Amino acid sequence: MDRMERDTIGEIAVSGDKFWGAQTERSRQNFKIGEEKMPIEIVRAFAKLKKAAARANADLGKLSREKEQAIVAVCDQIVAGELDEHFPLVVWQTGSGTQSNMNVNEVVAYVAGASVHPNDDVNMSQSSNDTFPTAMHIAAYMAVVEDLLPELEAMKRILAEKKEKYWRMVKIGRTHLQDATPLTLGQEISGWESMIAHAEKFIKESSEHLLELAIGGTAVGTGLNATADFGARVAKHLEADTSYPFRSAENKFYALTSHSELNFVHGALRALASDLMKIANDVRFLASGPRSGIGELTIPANEPGSSIMPGKVNPTQCEALTMVAAQVMGNDTTINVAASQGNFELNVYKPVIIYNFLQSVRLLADGMRSFRVHCLEGLEANEVVMQELVDRSLMLVTALNPHIGYEKAAKIAKTAFAEDLSLKEAAIRSGFVTEEQFALWIDPLKMTNLDAE
Amino acid sequence: MDRMERDTIGEIAVSGDKFWGAQTERSRQNFKIGEEKMPIEIVRAFAKLKKAAARANADLGKLSREKEQAIVAVCDQIVAGELDEHFPLVVWQTGSGTQSNMNVNEVVAYVAGASVHPNDDVNMSQSSNDTFPTAMHIAAYMAVVEDLLPELEAMKRILAEKKEKYWRMVKIGRTHLQDATPLTLGQEISGWESMIAHAEKFIKESSEHLLELAIGGTAVGTGLNATADFGARVAKHLEADTSYPFRSAENKFYALTSHSELNFVHGALRALASDLMKIANDVRFLASGPRSGIGELTIPANEPGSSIMPGKVNPTQCEALTMVAAQVMGNDTTINVAASQGNFELNVYKPVIIYNFLQSVRLLADGMRSFRVHCLEGLEANEVVMQELVDRSLMLVTALNPHIGYEKAAKIAKTAFAEDLSLKEAAIRSGFVTEEQFALWIDPLKMTNLDAE
Amino acid sequence: MDRMERDTIGEIAVSGDKFWGAQTERSRQNFKIGEEKMPIEIVRAFAKLKKAAARANADLGKLSREKEQAIVAVCDQIVAGELDEHFPLVVWQTGSGTQSNMNVNEVVAYVAGASVHPNDDVNMSQSSNDTFPTAMHIAAYMAVVEDLLPELEAMKRILAEKKEKYWRMVKIGRTHLQDATPLTLGQEISGWESMIAHAEKFIKESSEHLLELAIGGTAVGTGLNATADFGARVAKHLEADTSYPFRSAENKFYALTSHSELNFVHGALRALASDLMKIANDVRFLASGPRSGIGELTIPANEPGSSIMPGKVNPTQCEALTMVAAQVMGNDTTINVAASQGNFELNVYKPVIIYNFLQSVRLLADGMRSFRVHCLEGLEANEVVMQELVDRSLMLVTALNPHIGYEKAAKIAKTAFAEDLSLKEAAIRSGFVTEEQFALWIDPLKMTNLDAE
Amino acid sequence: MDRMERDTIGEIAVSGDKFWGAQTERSRQNFKIGEEKMPIEIVRAFAKLKKAAARANADLGKLSREKEQAIVAVCDQIVAGELDEHFPLVVWQTGSGTQSNMNVNEVVAYVAGASVHPNDDVNMSQSSNDTFPTAMHIAAYMAVVEDLLPELEAMKRILAEKKEKYWRMVKIGRTHLQDATPLTLGQEISGWESMIAHAEKFIKESSEHLLELAIGGTAVGTGLNATADFGARVAKHLEADTSYPFRSAENKFYALTSHSELNFVHGALRALASDLMKIANDVRFLASGPRSGIGELTIPANEPGSSIMPGKVNPTQCEALTMVAAQVMGNDTTINVAASQGNFELNVYKPVIIYNFLQSVRLLADGMRSFRVHCLEGLEANEVVMQELVDRSLMLVTALNPHIGYEKAAKIAKTAFAEDLSLKEAAIRSGFVTEEQFALWIDPLKMTNLDAE
Repeated sequence: MDRMERDTIGEIAVSGDKFWGAQTERSRQNFKIGEEKMPIEIVRAFAKLKKAAARANADLGKLSREKEQAIVAVCDQIVAGELDEHFPLVVWQTGSGTQSNMNVNEVVAYVAGASVHPNDDVNMSQSSNDTFPTAMHIAAYMAVVEDLLPELEAMKRILAEKKEKYWRMVKIGRTHLQDATPLTLGQEISGWESMIAHAEKFIKESSEHLLELAIGGTAVGTGLNATADFGARVAKHLEADTSYPFRSAENKFYALTSHSELNFVHGALRALASDLMKIANDVRFLASGPRSGIGELTIPANEPGSSIMPGKVNPTQCEALTMVAAQVMGNDTTINVAASQGNFELNVYKPVIIYNFLQSVRLLADGMRSFRVHCLEGLEANEVVMQELVDRSLMLVTALNPHIGYEKAAKIAKTAFAEDLSLKEAAIRSGFVTEEQFALWIDPLKMTNLDAE
Repeated sequence: MDRMERDTIGEIAVSGDKFWGAQTERSRQNFKIGEEKMPIEIVRAFAKLKKAAARANADLGKLSREKEQAIVAVCDQIVAGELDEHFPLVVWQTGSGTQSNMNVNEVVAYVAGASVHPNDDVNMSQSSNDTFPTAMHIAAYMAVVEDLLPELEAMKRILAEKKEKYWRMVKIGRTHLQDATPLTLGQEISGWESMIAHAEKFIKESSEHLLELAIGGTAVGTGLNATADFGARVAKHLEADTSYPFRSAENKFYALTSHSELNFVHGALRALASDLMKIANDVRFLASGPRSGIGELTIPANEPGSSIMPGKVNPTQCEALTMVAAQVMGNDTTINVAASQGNFELNVYKPVIIYNFLQSVRLLADGMRSFRVHCLEGLEANEVVMQELVDRSLMLVTALNPHIGYEKAAKIAKTAFAEDLSLKEAAIRSGFVTEEQFALWIDPLKMTNLDAE
Repeated sequence: MDRMERDTIGEIAVSGDKFWGAQTERSRQNFKIGEEKMPIEIVRAFAKLKKAAARANADLGKLSREKEQAIVAVCDQIVAGELDEHFPLVVWQTGSGTQSNMNVNEVVAYVAGASVHPNDDVNMSQSSNDTFPTAMHIAAYMAVVEDLLPELEAMKRILAEKKEKYWRMVKIGRTHLQDATPLTLGQEISGWESMIAHAEKFIKESSEHLLELAIGGTAVGTGLNATADFGARVAKHLEADTSYPFRSAENKFYALTSHSELNFVHGALRALASDLMKIANDVRFLASGPRSGIGELTIPANEPGSSIMPGKVNPTQCEALTMVAAQVMGNDTTINVAASQGNFELNVYKPVIIYNFLQSVRLLADGMRSFRVHCLEGLEANEVVMQELVDRSLMLVTALNPHIGYEKAAKIAKTAFAEDLSLKEAAIRSGFVTEEQFALWIDPLKMTNLDAE
Repeated sequence: MDRMERDTIGEIAVSGDKFWGAQTERSRQNFKIGEEKMPIEIVRAFAKLKKAAARANADLGKLSREKEQAIVAVCDQIVAGELDEHFPLVVWQTGSGTQSNMNVNEVVAYVAGASVHPNDDVNMSQSSNDTFPTAMHIAAYMAVVEDLLPELEAMKRILAEKKEKYWRMVKIGRTHLQDATPLTLGQEISGWESMIAHAEKFIKESSEHLLELAIGGTAVGTGLNATADFGARVAKHLEADTSYPFRSAENKFYALTSHSELNFVHGALRALASDLMKIANDVRFLASGPRSGIGELTIPANEPGSSIMPGKVNPTQCEALTMVAAQVMGNDTTINVAASQGNFELNVYKPVIIYNFLQSVRLLADGMRSFRVHCLEGLEANEVVMQELVDRSLMLVTALNPHIGYEKAAKIAKTAFAEDLSLKEAAIRSGFVTEEQFALWIDPLKMTNLDAE
C-alpha cells in the first residue's frame, strides 16, 4: 500500500515498501530516461559522507549524539548494501545530483526514525552542491584504489612472470608490420609490462588529486550555513573511516564548478585503455592462425572455436578487452565535454561525469582481470614457429657485415629474396661463407643485446 | 538443481531453471566484465531473424515444417518478452557476438523441444558473422523508427504550437550574447523547430541504409552453406513480419566487416544531440533568474527549487537533456573508433557498437520526451520582461536612421548609453524627435520583418 | 610605407602594400594565435558570394551597375587566386567570422576603387552572421563535390580493376584474425570497393543539405535591411555562376545558429575515414613480411626500406592514410562540440568548424589519391603464398563432410593439427580418402560460392 | 638548376638551392597530402638530438672530433632557425617519421660538407625508430615548459590581481543559472584562478614523464648497433645543452611502441582546455548586454562592435579561446586513437600525434595570452549592476530566518515574488521588519563568509 509524502510542492504517494520520500518519488516520475541507475558506488560514498558529516555536526554541538548515532547506523547499513533497493534514481536527473542527495537524506531519515529530519539533520551544514562532488571524489578514488590498482599490480605480475620465462627466446622483431631485427619474446613482453607500469604510475599520481573534497562549500562555495572548519572536520572523519587521507579543498568555488581533477584522472584511464588495446592487438595478431597467420603465440581455448576445425581459437578475451578500450575512449569524450560546460558557481553535468568515470574504472578492472585470467595466464610461446620465422628472415644478414663487408652481405640477401632461399642457403651458395662460419657468425640472440641490459 | 550441458569442449553445469546451454554458460563464466547486458532489443531482433530464417529454410525444403513451427513459436515468445531472463550475457564478450547468437540458438532449441538442434536447425544456413550484424540492423532500424522518429514528430508539434502562440511577441535578439536587433519569440522558436525538422530528415534518410542486411553471407561473406537466395528470402519474411522493407545486402563482405552504415546513422544522432544541447541551453538561459538573470521565459516547477525562495525553478529537464547529449557525443567516439577496427573478413567490435547505438537512441527518445512533457509543454513567455528588455535596448536606434540621419541617431544612442537613459528618453531629450514621432518610428515588430515571411 | 585607415574606434596604420583596411588590421594585431589561416577556400567562397550579392543588389536597383561591375571584377580576381596575400587572418578570431567578412569587404572595396564602400556597397543587404555561414556551405559543398567525390570515383575504379583481375584467385579467409573458410582475393577487394561506394553514397546524399544557404537572414535571421527575396536572388546568381543548385534556406534562424548540416556531413566523412583505416590496415597486414608476416600481397617500394634488407617495403602510404583517418576522427569531435555550443541567435564557433571540415576533405582527398597512386595501383597478389596458405589450412576439411561424414573428417583435421601435417597428408594417411578423391573433393574455389554471385 | 642525388632506389633530381637529399625528395613527391608541415619544433629538437648524439659518438671514439664539430655547427644553425626552408616534408608521411629523420640527416650532412655521411655519421648509433620519439619528447617538453607554463603563470597573476581588487565586491551567486546566495566577485575569480593553478599542477606533474627518452633503442628497442650506455650519454649531453634533466628510458620497447606519456600529458592539456572554455563562457555571459543581458562585467572594446550601437562589445577574445578549446578537445581524440594503434615493436602514428600535441600547446599558450592581454587585463566590474541584482534578488531572505522565523520570512519572499516587489519593500510592507532592521539584518557581504576564509 502507498503512503503519502509531502514536500513544498505538495503531497505525493510513495510505495509503502520503499523508504524514500517525496523528492525521490518526484524525480522517479519526472525523469523516465534510460536504464542507467545512479551508480551504487555513489550511494555508498554518500553514506560514508553523511556519517562523517553527522559526526562533525555532533562534535560541533549542532546535532545531538542520539541523532548522530541513528544516522551513522543507517549509513552503515547502506554501505553494507542492505538498502540498495531504496535508491531507484537514474543518472539523467538534475545535473547537480540534488535528487540523489535527497534520496540519501530521505532514506537515512526514514530508517533512522521520526525525529531525524532529512534536510535539517541528515543534510545539516551541507548542500547538494558540495555533497555530490564530494561523493564523486570518494567513489572515484576508492574505485581506482580498490578495484583498478590491484588489477594493474596483478597484470604486472603475470607479465613479469612471462617475461622471465621467455627472456631468452629469440623471435623476429616487426616494425611497420615488416620483418626487422630480432628481439626476445621476453623483451617484447617487457614492453607490455612497462606500459602497465607507466599507466599505474599515471593513475596513482593523478588520482591523488581526488583526495581534495568540496565538502564545506555548501550552495555556492562560500560555506554559508556551515562553520569554517566543517569541511576539514568531515575530511578527518572520512579519513578515520576509510584510511584514505581525504582533505578539504582549498578553494571551494573551484570544487563545485570545475571537474578538472576527474577529467585529468580519466586522461590517465584512457591512456591505459589505449595501451591495453595495443597489447590485446599484439596478442591476437601473434596468436593468429593456426596455419595461415603468424602463430608465434598460443592462447587458451576457453570456448569451442569450431566443431570441425581443431586449433581455431578465437581471441575472444582480446576482443572483449579492446571493446572495453573503445568504450573508455568514448567515455573520455563525454567526460571532457561535460567538464567544459560549467556555468558560474556550478557545473551541472555531475551525474554523467561520474557515471562514465565509474563505468570506465569497472570495465578496465574487470576487462583486465578477465583477460589476465582467461588469456594471459595460459598464453604460451610456439618456439618452433618463432625459430622458423627467425631462420627464414633476411634481416639477420646485417650480422655478416663485419665479417665479409656490406656489399657481399647485401648480395647474399638479394639473392635469397629473389630466389626464395633461406639466408643460410644463399650465404653458402654465394661462396663467401661456409656452413660453420654461418653458424658461428649469425647469432640472433646476440643481436638482441640481451646481455647489455 | 543444475543440469549438465555439453559442447565440443566438454560438460558444464547449467542452473536447472535456465533454458540456455553450454556455450552461453561458458560465456557467462568467462566474461565477468561490467554490468552492461547485451541489449534486449538485440535478443528480440535475433528472434525475428531466427523466425524468418526458419521460414526460409522450410520454404527451401531444408527444414521440416514441424521444426519451423516449433522455432517460430519460441521466437514469438522471445519477441513478446516472455523469456528475457534466459539471456544473461554481457556486452563484453566475443566481438562477433557469437555467444549471443548461440544463446538465442540454445534457448530456442531448448524451449522448442528435443528434436530441434541449436546449430543444425536454429542456426541453419547462418553464421554468427552474418546473423549478428543482421540483428544489429534490425534492432537499430526499429529503435530509430519506432522510438525516436515519433518523439521527433512530437517535439516538432509542441514547438510548432509554441511558435504560433508567440508568433508576434517581440523580444530582443542576441548575437555573441550581446543585444542585437529584435525578433519575435515565435521566430526564435521556429529556429528550434527547424533544428528538429533537419535532424529528423537526416535520421530518416540515413537510417534507410540500415535496411540492408548481412544475412546470407554466413562465415566470411561468401555464403558458404547457404543457398544463393537465402538472404533475399529471409529479408522477405522479415518484411512480412515487420512491414519494413528489409533487403539482402548487395555485398556481404562489406556487411560483415564494415559498420559504416551504423556509423553514418550515428553521425545523424549526434547532430541531433548537438542541437538538443543548444535548445536546452537557450531555454535555461532565457529562463534564468527569477530576478538576476534574463527571465524571458518561465518553465514549470516540477520539484521544490528552494523551500524559502519562491520562483527558484531549476531547469532540471534541460540538465538531464544536455547530459544525454554529452553521452551521445561520447558514444559517437566509441562507435567511430570501433567501426575503424575491422580486420580482413570481420569487424569484431559488434557488441560495443550496437550497445552504444541503442543507448543513444533510447536516451535521445526518452530525454526528448521528458524534456517535452515536463518542460516545453509548460514553457511560457514573460511578455513584460521581453517588452522591458526591448525597450531598454539601444539597438532600436537603427530605425531612426531613415528619419533623422545616421549621425543624429548615433548621437542619441551614445547619450543613452553614456547617461544610462532609455533610448526614448535620450531621443526626446536630444530634440531631434518628439514623443509622437518616437512612438511612430520605433516599431520593433516591424524590425522583425515578420510580414515578409 | 604605411597608410592610415580608420574605423569607428579610430585610426590604425596598415602596411602600404596590403589592400586590407582597419578592421582586418585590428584582427591581425588582436589575434596572434596559432598559424592556422582562415582557409583560402572560404575567401574564394566569399568572393563568389559578394559577386552574387552585388548582382542581386543591382537587379533590385539598390546598387549601381558601375559599382556592381567593379565589385564583380575584384571578386573574379580573388577567385582566380590573384589576391591571396591580402587575406592574412587566422582561424582563431571572432567566432562569427566577422573579421574575415570585413577582410573581404575591405579588399574588394580597396581594389574596386574609392567610390565602393566596404560596408555600404560590398556588404549591402548582408551581415557577417548570414554571409559567413553561406560561405561555409559554398566552400564545403564545392570541396566535397570537386575534390573528394572525384577521388572516391577514382578509388572505386582502381578497386574494381583489381577485383576483376583477382576475381578467381582463392585465398584463405580470416575472421577473428583466425583462419576461416576461403574466398577469392577479388571477393575480398569487392568488400573494400563496397565500403568506398557506400561512403560515396553517404557523402553525396548528406552534402545535398549544404545547398541550403543562410544568405538573406542578415544579423539575427529576420532579414532586416534585406528584401524578402534577397536570399533567393543571391542563390540564383550563385547557381548561375557555379552550376550548383544553391537555394535560400527556409528558416534563417536555424541557418545562423545551428550547423547541424555540416555536422551531419562530417559524420559521413568520418565514416569514410573509419573504412579507409580498415582498408589500409588490411593492405598492410596482408603485405606484411617479406618472410615472417602474412605476405599475400606485394605493394610498391617507393622509398628505400632498408639498405641491406631487400624486400623490406614499409607500407608508408597506408601509414599516411591511417594518420589522416585519425586526424579526421579528431576533427569530428571538434566539429560536434563546436556545433553544440550555439547560443540564442548565433553559433560563434564558425571558423573552427569550417577549418576542421575543410581540412578533413583535403586530407581525405589527398590521402586517398596518394594511397591509390603510390600503393593500390602497384598492389599485386602473391599467388604462390595464397595457394600455400590455403593448402596449409585445415579449414577446407569441411568439404569432406558430405563424402565421408563429419566424424571421419574431424578425425582427419585433428590428426593434421596434432601432428603438424597438411590436410592432404592427414587425409591420405587416414585411409578414408585417396589422393584422387582429395583432389576431386577439396576444391577451395567452389567453397567461395563464386558462381552463385 | 637541379642536382642529382642517389639512394638505394636510384637517382633523383633535387632543386639546386635546396640542401636536402634523395630520401627527402622522394617523400616530397610521394606524399602530396595536405598543407600541414612537420612542426619546426620537431626539426629543432632533432637538431639538438643530432648534436648530442654526435658528442656521445665522439666521446665513445666512434666519430672523429672533426666530424663532431661539423655536425654540431650545422645543428646550431638549424636550432637558430637559419635552415628552416630545407625541411619541406609534411606530417602525412611514413608513420615512423623516418623521412623527417632522413631530412635532418641529409641537410646536416650536406651543409657539414662532403666527408660527413647522413646515415653513417649523422645517424650513427641511431634509428628513426628511436630518434623520432626522442625528438617528440624533447619538442613536447620544451613547448610545455617554455611556452605554456609561463602563460599559465601570467594568467594566474592577472587573476590574482583581479581577485584582490574585487575581493569584497558582493554579487549574486548563480547555480543551475538561477539566482542563489551571494558571493564576492573576488571569490568567483578565485575559482577561475584555482582552475588555472590546478591545470598548471597537472601539466607540470605529468610532463615530467616526457623527460624519458627513447634514444638508445635503435630499430626495435634492443639497441642493436648502439653501445649500452649510448642513450644515457646522449641524455647527459641534452641536459647540458638544454638544462632539462632528460634521461634514457628504462624500457626502450615501451618507448618505441607506446606513446602513453604524450597521451597522458595531453589529458592534462585538454583538462585545461575544458576549464578555459568554462572561464571564457562565464566572462562572456557576465559581460552580456549592454542592456538586455547580465551586464555585471565590462570587457574591453578592441574592435568596432557596431557602428550605430554604442556599448555593443562582442566578446571576441572569449570566442577565439573557446574555439581553441574545441580544437584541443578534438586533438585529444586524435592523439588517443593514434596512441592505441601501435603494433609489435613500433607505433606508426608518430607524426600525427606530435603534430596535434604541439598544435594544442601553441594554441593554448597563444589563446590564453591573447585572452589575457586583450580581455582579462581590461575586465572591469559594474558595481552598480551587481549591487542592483543583489538588491533585487529574493535569495537574501534567508538572512531574516534567525530574526523573525522561517514562516514569516517565507511569506515576505512569496509576496515579493508574486507582487514583483523588492525584498526590502515586501519586508517593510509586511510589518514584520522595520527599515532599520532590514538594513541591519540583511548584509549580503556577511553571507559570503568572507571573513571566515
